[in-house]
Amino acid sequence: MGTPLPPAPAASFASDNAAGVLPEVMAALAEANVGPALAYGADPWTERAAALVGDVLGEPGAQVAFCWGGTGANVVGLQCLLRPWEGVVCPDTAHINVDECGAPERFTGAKLLALPTPDGKLRPEQIQPLLHVVGDEHHVQPRVVSITQSTESGTLYRPDEIAALAEVAHAHDLYLHLDGARLANAAAALGDVRSFTTEAGVDVLTFGATKAGAMYGEAVAFLRPGLGDQVRFVRKQAAQLPSKMRFVAAQFEALLTDDLWVRSADRANGLALLLAHRLAGRPGVEVVRPPEVNSVFLRLPSSAAVAELQEWSFVWDWDVAVHEVRAMTSFATTPDDVERFATGVAAIAARHL
Amino acid sequence: MGTPLPPAPAASFASDNAAGVLPEVMAALAEANVGPALAYGADPWTERAAALVGDVLGEPGAQVAFCWGGTGANVVGLQCLLRPWEGVVCPDTAHINVDECGAPERFTGAKLLALPTPDGKLRPEQIQPLLHVVGDEHHVQPRVVSITQSTESGTLYRPDEIAALAEVAHAHDLYLHLDGARLANAAAALGDVRSFTTEAGVDVLTFGATKAGAMYGEAVAFLRPGLGDQVRFVRKQAAQLPSKMRFVAAQFEALLTDDLWVRSADRANGLALLLAHRLAGRPGVEVVRPPEVNSVFLRLPSSAAVAELQEWSFVWDWDVAVHEVRAMTSFATTPDDVERFATGVAAIAARHL
Amino acid sequence: MGTPLPPAPAASFASDNAAGVLPEVMAALAEANVGPALAYGADPWTERAAALVGDVLGEPGAQVAFCWGGTGANVVGLQCLLRPWEGVVCPDTAHINVDECGAPERFTGAKLLALPTPDGKLRPEQIQPLLHVVGDEHHVQPRVVSITQSTESGTLYRPDEIAALAEVAHAHDLYLHLDGARLANAAAALGDVRSFTTEAGVDVLTFGATKAGAMYGEAVAFLRPGLGDQVRFVRKQAAQLPSKMRFVAAQFEALLTDDLWVRSADRANGLALLLAHRLAGRPGVEVVRPPEVNSVFLRLPSSAAVAELQEWSFVWDWDVAVHEVRAMTSFATTPDDVERFATGVAAIAARHL
Amino acid sequence: MGTPLPPAPAASFASDNAAGVLPEVMAALAEANVGPALAYGADPWTERAAALVGDVLGEPGAQVAFCWGGTGANVVGLQCLLRPWEGVVCPDTAHINVDECGAPERFTGAKLLALPTPDGKLRPEQIQPLLHVVGDEHHVQPRVVSITQSTESGTLYRPDEIAALAEVAHAHDLYLHLDGARLANAAAALGDVRSFTTEAGVDVLTFGATKAGAMYGEAVAFLRPGLGDQVRFVRKQAAQLPSKMRFVAAQFEALLTDDLWVRSADRANGLALLLAHRLAGRPGVEVVRPPEVNSVFLRLPSSAAVAELQEWSFVWDWDVAVHEVRAMTSFATTPDDVERFATGVAAIAARHL
Repeated sequence: MGTPLPPAPAASFASDNAAGVLPEVMAALAEANVGPALAYGADPWTERAAALVGDVLGEPGAQVAFCWGGTGANVVGLQCLLRPWEGVVCPDTAHINVDECGAPERFTGAKLLALPTPDGKLRPEQIQPLLHVVGDEHHVQPRVVSITQSTESGTLYRPDEIAALAEVAHAHDLYLHLDGARLANAAAALGDVRSFTTEAGVDVLTFGATKAGAMYGEAVAFLRPGLGDQVRFVRKQAAQLPSKMRFVAAQFEALLTDDLWVRSADRANGLALLLAHRLAGRPGVEVVRPPEVNSVFLRLPSSAAVAELQEWSFVWDWDVAVHEVRAMTSFATTPDDVERFATGVAAIAARHL
Repeated sequence: MGTPLPPAPAASFASDNAAGVLPEVMAALAEANVGPALAYGADPWTERAAALVGDVLGEPGAQVAFCWGGTGANVVGLQCLLRPWEGVVCPDTAHINVDECGAPERFTGAKLLALPTPDGKLRPEQIQPLLHVVGDEHHVQPRVVSITQSTESGTLYRPDEIAALAEVAHAHDLYLHLDGARLANAAAALGDVRSFTTEAGVDVLTFGATKAGAMYGEAVAFLRPGLGDQVRFVRKQAAQLPSKMRFVAAQFEALLTDDLWVRSADRANGLALLLAHRLAGRPGVEVVRPPEVNSVFLRLPSSAAVAELQEWSFVWDWDVAVHEVRAMTSFATTPDDVERFATGVAAIAARHL
Repeated sequence: MGTPLPPAPAASFASDNAAGVLPEVMAALAEANVGPALAYGADPWTERAAALVGDVLGEPGAQVAFCWGGTGANVVGLQCLLRPWEGVVCPDTAHINVDECGAPERFTGAKLLALPTPDGKLRPEQIQPLLHVVGDEHHVQPRVVSITQSTESGTLYRPDEIAALAEVAHAHDLYLHLDGARLANAAAALGDVRSFTTEAGVDVLTFGATKAGAMYGEAVAFLRPGLGDQVRFVRKQAAQLPSKMRFVAAQFEALLTDDLWVRSADRANGLALLLAHRLAGRPGVEVVRPPEVNSVFLRLPSSAAVAELQEWSFVWDWDVAVHEVRAMTSFATTPDDVERFATGVAAIAARHL
Repeated sequence: MGTPLPPAPAASFASDNAAGVLPEVMAALAEANVGPALAYGADPWTERAAALVGDVLGEPGAQVAFCWGGTGANVVGLQCLLRPWEGVVCPDTAHINVDECGAPERFTGAKLLALPTPDGKLRPEQIQPLLHVVGDEHHVQPRVVSITQSTESGTLYRPDEIAALAEVAHAHDLYLHLDGARLANAAAALGDVRSFTTEAGVDVLTFGATKAGAMYGEAVAFLRPGLGDQVRFVRKQAAQLPSKMRFVAAQFEALLTDDLWVRSADRANGLALLLAHRLAGRPGVEVVRPPEVNSVFLRLPSSAAVAELQEWSFVWDWDVAVHEVRAMTSFATTPDDVERFATGVAAIAARHL
C-alpha cells in the first residue's frame, strides 16, 4: 500500500463551516454580554451593525435584516421579492436549488427555474428564452434572477458579468438576488465588494457571516428602496428573527471592523491557491480548475482513492462519476495544514494509480 | 409629581430574553471553539447534548433536534405531527397563536383551534366538543393539543392536569405538544421536569434554552418513538438547521450540567415572588395573581401611570384596557434590581391615584 | 308512536345545494354546446357573462373571474388581497372559517381572526381592537374583513351595516370581502344587490351561482380597480380555471337574464317564510328566528325527535346541544313540499314532547 | 400570395378542449337533473360512477375521487403521496411542470425534479441517479415518479415501458403517478387501459374526462389500498370538491358506458392519422413524427407561415424556434374538417417556401 500517510491535518478541508469562530468574534460576543438589551433588534448593537453593513455595501440607507442562517436568509430575501406564482431563474447548481431541501419553494410557493451552466455561473442570454411565458396564466412568471457569489463551484462572476445580468433582469422587470454565503471570499478575490453588488445592480443579497468566521447569523440587505418594506413580518413568520439579536449584530460588527471578514477570507483564498499549487502535476491528481476562491476541486484515480482520502481527512464527494472531491480552506486553515493535506492526497493518489 | 424616582434598575423587567448569557454558557462556547468539527450536528458536542436532553427528560432514547429559536422549534415540532388539513387545539393566549406572526399555520398549513381560558391553561373538557367534526371533510381535523408550560400568563399546569389532557388527547388519537420556552421555570417551580412531561404523557416538546440563559438555540424532543422520524428533513426545510451546531449543543451541555438551567430559573422565580411581595398592598398597585414562575402581572391606576413606568424602566403592556403590564425576572436579575423596581413602581402608582 | 307520518316531501330541505339545476340554465348549457370555442375563457360567452356580472353589480369595469366552486372562489378572491403574514377578520361562523377544511389558510398562508357574533354578523366595533398589533412583527397583520351575505345563520346585513364595516375597514387600510354564496337570496330579500355591495363599499365578492340554480361555477368580482390584477395567475395556481369555460359563463348569462337568479331566490325565500309560518306555535317546535332568507332554524324537543326527522326527511344538525336543525328551501322547493314537511315536523315534534 | 385559402374548418385544431360536449354526456346531464340529491357525493350517481371507474381500471376496490379539473386532480392525487420535503421525478415537458402555474409545488410544498427527454417519455435509467440523495437532509427526497399518458408530446408509453418505470420506482419506495388527461386516447391507441395502468403498476392516476368529451370533471383513482385514505380532506382543502357532484358522476357514467370514451378518442386518433397522411410530403410541411394519438406536430417554413395559419385556423405554437405548431383533433372533428385544414396548411406552407 505504499508509504505510510502523514498524520492528518488539524484543520478540516471538508467545508469552511467545519471551522470554529474567529477570536475577534468570540471576543465581541463576550463584550456584548453586558447588562440587558431589548430583544428582537431594539438594541444599539443591531443599529450599529446594520449601518455598518450598509456602509460596506456603499448603500448607507440599505435595509438590513439579521437572520439565523444562510437558508433562512435566502428564504427571507426571496420572499420579499416574490409572489407564489412567480419564479426564480438560477443555475441548477445553486444552493437554493439543491442544498436547502426545498425551503425556498416551500416557503415562498414560487418555483425555481434552474438552468444548466458549465461553471455555476448564469449567463444573461439564458434569461431571455424564459420570458416568452410572461403574461400567460398557465406558466410560472419569472420574477427573480438568483446568483451565488462566489459560486458553489468555486468560481467568480466579474463585476461586469453581474452588471450584464442585472441589466437583462431589470429590463424585464425582474430582480437580481445574490446569495453571498461566501461574499467575503469574493470580496477578497476581487478587491472590493461594491463593484459586484451595489454598483453592479444587485437588488437584494444575503451577506454571509458564518463561513467568514462567525458562530452563526447572516444578514439580508436590500439595496433598492422599498424592497424590504415587509421584511420584518417575513422574517418573523419564517422563524428567522433572533431574540437576543445583539449577539448576531456584535459578530457582524467584529467582522466588518478593519476588514476582518475580507482579511480572513483572503487568507483562506491564498491557502486554496497554495494547495492547488502543491498538487499540480502530482501523479493521479487532477486539479479541476485553478481556484478562484477557497475551494479546490480534485479528481483522484478511483473511488477507492477517494474513500481512502475521506478516511484519512474527510472531504465531500462532488462528482462521484469522475472521483471528484471538493477541498475547502477557511480562516482556520494553516499553511502547515495545507502542506500536510497535499502530501496525503498525493500519496493516496499515487498508490491508486 | 411627587417624590423623585430612584435610578432605574440595572436589569430589565421587560422580558427574560432581555437578559444576556449565563457565564457558564459563555465559557462553554469558548471551550467549544477548538479545532474543526463537521457541520450540521455530526460532531461529539451534539451527540452528548442530545443524550443529555433525553436523560433529563427521563427518555434516554428520545430523538432530539436542535434548532435556532423558539418559533422555529415550535414549527418543527408541530410539522412532525400534522398534515395540512389538521388542527391544533390551544389556548387563545398561546405563543403559537398570537406571537409568532402566523408561522405555525404558514409552515404546516394546519389551523390553530384557539380556545379561551381564564389563565392560559387548557382544560380537558374543552377538547371533546371539537371532536364532533372528526371524519367530516368540510372541517379541519383536530390532531394536536398544544400547551405551554409555564404558560404565557405566568401560570403552571400541575402534572396531573397535563396527564388529564394527555389522556383525553390520546383517547382520541391526538398528540400532546408542549411549548417549553420556559420549561426551566416550570421545572424549578414544580421540583422536577419529568413529572409534567414524559411521565404525564407529553409526546413532543420544545425545550427552551434562550430564556434559561443561553445565547440562542432551542431543542425539539420527541418522547414517543417514531414521531421524529422525519424531523431531519422538516428542520432543514424550515431553515432551522444550525450549521456550526456544536455551539448550540455546547450551550445545552452547560445548561444541563449540575442543573444550571433549573437553578438559574429558580433564582428568577424567587425574585418574582419577592417583587410581588414588595408590591403587595401598595396603593394603586394590584398584583393580579401570586406569581407561580418568573412573571408578575401588575395593574396600575391609569395608562398615564403605565406610560411613566415604561419611560422609567420598560415593561410590556399586557392588557391596555385595565392598565396591566407584565414584569419579568431572569437569571440576570438581582435582589437589588427588584427592590429598586418595586420602589419605582410604587412611587409611580402612588402619584397616579 | 302517534299518527303515521305523511310521505316525505319530494324536495330536500337539507340544503339548497341538494337541488338540481334550473331549466333555463340547462337550456343555456345545451345552447352553448355548438361548435368549438377556445378554452380558458377566450370565448364570447365568457366575455358577455363577465360584462353582465359587472352590470348587475353597477360596476361595468369590474374584473370578473369565473371559478369552479364556492371554496375556490373564496380562496382566489382572498389570495388577491393578502400576503401570508396578514389576517382576515371574520365571524367565527363564517364558511371560510368552519366549512372549507382550512382551504383559505392553506392556500393564502394567512390567518383567520375569527370573532364571536350572536347572529353571524360582524359589527364595526369588533374590528378596532384587533388593530393595536398593526406594525408589530410578532403578530399577524389584519388586512381583510370578510363577511357573508346572506349569512350562514340565515341573517342579513342591511346596506348601512355593510357600509359601516367598509368605512372602518377602509379607514385602516383593510379590504372588505363578501362571500356571496347566497347573494341571490340577499338580493331578493333586500330588493337589489348594488346597495349592499358596490354602493356599500365592498371591495371583492364571490358571486354565487350554484345555490342559485346553476350546475356549477362561481365568480369572483373585483369592485375596486387594481385588486384583480393578478387574478389570472392566482386562479390558475389555485386550480380554479375551468377549461371549457363557456359552460360556466353560459350559466351566468342565463341566471342574470331577466333577473332569473333573483326571482328564483325570491321564491325560495318566500317558501322559507311559509314554512316558518306553518310551524309557528306548533307544540314542541321552536322557530329560532323569523327567516330572512331561505333557511329556517328549528328546535325540536329532543335529539330523538331530530333523529326521527332526519330519518324521514333529512336535514342537518345545527346545534346538537339544543336539538336545533336547519331547514333550507331552494328554487326547486314547492308549496306542497313545504306543507308536507311542516306537517311531518309538527307530527314528529308532538310525539316527542 | 398564391391561391386563396379555403374556408377554415368548422372544428378547431387548437386543442381537444376547444371542443364542446358529447351528445351522450349532455343527455346524461339532463337526465341527472331530476329531484334532489345530497351534495358532495352522497348520491347514487357518484356511487355508481366511482364503481365504474374501478371496474374499467380492473381494480374494483379502487378509491375514486371526482374533482373539478385536470390541474386540481393532479394536485389532489400528488398531495396524497407526498410530504413537503419530497420530490416528484417527471419529464421537463410534463403538464404539472410547465402548464399548471406551479400549482403542484404551491399546494404540496414538494419540488418537481424535472428531467429532459427526447419525446416526453421518462426512462427508468433516469431515476436511479436521483436517488443518491436519499436520507440526506439537505436534499429534497424523491418520492413520486409522474408520467403522462398519452404524453404532452403526443407519444405513448408501451405497457412494458410503464411497468419498467413502476419496477424501479417501487424498488426504491417511490410511487408511480400517471396524469391521464388523455387516458382515452392512449386506451384507444393501445387497445385497452388496464395493461398500462393497473397491470403495469401505476399507483395513482388522473382519469381525464374533459378532453374525452365531458363538460367538466376529472377523477383521481387510487390503485393501491391506503393511498387514498386522506383524499376526502385533501380534495376539500384543495377546493376540488364539487357540491352538486351527481353531475360530474353522471358524465363519467355516460362516458364509461359502452366504451363511449374510447370510441370517441379512437375517432380523434384516426383523424390525426388522416391529417398526417394528407400533409406527408407536402412542400414546406414537415410532420415531426407519425401521430400516435390525437396530435400532429407540424413544422412550417417560417414564422410568417405560422402566423398566417394561426390567423386562418388557430393552432398553438409548440417550438417557435423551428416554426413548429401542434394540431389536435377531438371527438368533434370531422373528416371534412381534416381535409379542409390539410388543404389550408399545405397552401400556406407552399407560398412561404
